[in-house]
Amino acid sequence: MGTKSEAPWHTPVVESLRAGPGTRVSELDTNGTPGFEGDKALAERLLVERGAALSDLQGKLFANGRIGDPRSVLLILQGMDTAGKGGMVRHVIGHVDPQGVDHTAFGVPTAEEKRHHFLWRIVKALPRGGQLGVFDRSHYEDVLVARVRSLVPENVWRRRYDEINQFESEITATGTTLVKVAMFVSLDEQKKRLSERLERRDKYWKYDPSDVSERALWPQYQEAYQDMLDKTNTENAPWYVIPCDRKWYSRIAVTELLIDVFERLDLDWPDPTFDIEVEKRRLAKA
Amino acid sequence: MGTKSEAPWHTPVVESLRAGPGTRVSELDTNGTPGFEGDKALAERLLVERGAALSDLQGKLFANGRIGDPRSVLLILQGMDTAGKGGMVRHVIGHVDPQGVDHTAFGVPTAEEKRHHFLWRIVKALPRGGQLGVFDRSHYEDVLVARVRSLVPENVWRRRYDEINQFESEITATGTTLVKVAMFVSLDEQKKRLSERLERRDKYWKYDPSDVSERALWPQYQEAYQDMLDKTNTENAPWYVIPCDRKWYSRIAVTELLIDVFERLDLDWPDPTFDIEVEKRRLAKA
Repeated sequence: MGTKSEAPWHTPVVESLRAGPGTRVSELDTNGTPGFEGDKALAERLLVERGAALSDLQGKLFANGRIGDPRSVLLILQGMDTAGKGGMVRHVIGHVDPQGVDHTAFGVPTAEEKRHHFLWRIVKALPRGGQLGVFDRSHYEDVLVARVRSLVPENVWRRRYDEINQFESEITATGTTLVKVAMFVSLDEQKKRLSERLERRDKYWKYDPSDVSERALWPQYQEAYQDMLDKTNTENAPWYVIPCDRKWYSRIAVTELLIDVFERLDLDWPDPTFDIEVEKRRLAKA
Repeated sequence: MGTKSEAPWHTPVVESLRAGPGTRVSELDTNGTPGFEGDKALAERLLVERGAALSDLQGKLFANGRIGDPRSVLLILQGMDTAGKGGMVRHVIGHVDPQGVDHTAFGVPTAEEKRHHFLWRIVKALPRGGQLGVFDRSHYEDVLVARVRSLVPENVWRRRYDEINQFESEITATGTTLVKVAMFVSLDEQKKRLSERLERRDKYWKYDPSDVSERALWPQYQEAYQDMLDKTNTENAPWYVIPCDRKWYSRIAVTELLIDVFERLDLDWPDPTFDIEVEKRRLAKA
């Protein structure tokens, strides 16, 4: 979609969803569909078509990666439970050739991970050139749950914002384009989604009793998300704020965000690294 | 499909493609469609439907993995250049939720990899419980190109067959089901596919001049593939031999193979690890 708007979008997502000084987590309309003028049916049809466009663009990045282009794209999905991170991977990233996707889900840190700096496990999972990396949760857990649950002393999590900015500035400088997506659902919508997990045999495994306990800490989480957005929303690694009560909106919105990022990479198919006519003659005789 | 045949299959792939003492690499009909009675159009329609079935099955494995089930499935794709390994990943594995896929492409070993035992990089890439691992090339390179190109002395590659059998017997014993797929195209079909890479701007990057040089070693490769099939076709980690001149056949065939393997795991949605009624009451109040 680029930066100019095209139907059914009246405003490109890179503009309407970009976090800014005025972004207030506590006042977000999580049920909104910023910039979009269509309905669910249109969004779902569009997702197929735009998913294919995303896949084509990633194919070009992959091809360039194979001949040594160091560039990569890294989608960071951050959000409370039930915000739809898993569904985003399945229904958006699922359109892309698995060869070009490097997906990592970060859970509660293991004993070994706890013995290292919080960025240790992150660095190990960074995408190589040509890849679309996807982080389901990320180093931002270390200024969210780590803060709200006091897993580390305040002076430790407080300095992490600067460490993260420094880290992200280094990886963007070496060719990784970050797409940082903060996904928000309302408390009511979360209750509905958690209830569903208690009603369906194919969803029990997604239910974690501790998710209910976290609901009591909603205001503290909102504050932590607000600080995250305020302190790490840099020019090179901006945050996008996605209303997620309507899954069909959040999915098409993130698809458009990714397409926009890929288009700015101005990718083309790589030139041959060999003499085509020479190779045709070699092949004819082989 | 299980082990009984259903239209349009007159024989299940697990039977018709299973390597055996009579398998002769030099006599394979790479243009064949063993067991299948349909045409290309039917195969392509089927792929959508059966891809969705595969995805559902993998979803159950993933769910069980999340509650500690150590089982995984590992698809090993081995074949000469242009056999269609990449397309297999894109068009078969592409149906599966990226969260449940762990894909690794093994290239020429790096300097670091060369300093280690040949299984070092393989072990690091094994899928965790709940995952469908996919190896595009594998440890079998170490008895194929390593043998044909004399990258190591004969006594080294000769003992690798036993090492591989021992290794595979260990990983299958700890819960990984191996699906070993040997993909074969004819020399003529390979020439056609290499030519195409020299004709299309979007395919140049796939062309490697060394692929042409390897064609002169075709008989040696056939011998190496034959030995690989003869020496590592074990009960727990059998080989399947896939004719790949027709991509539509190879893709639906591997899809059916995977479905068969998943069905034998006899997966169900996991039981809840909590008291549903207690949680409903907690959630109502939260």
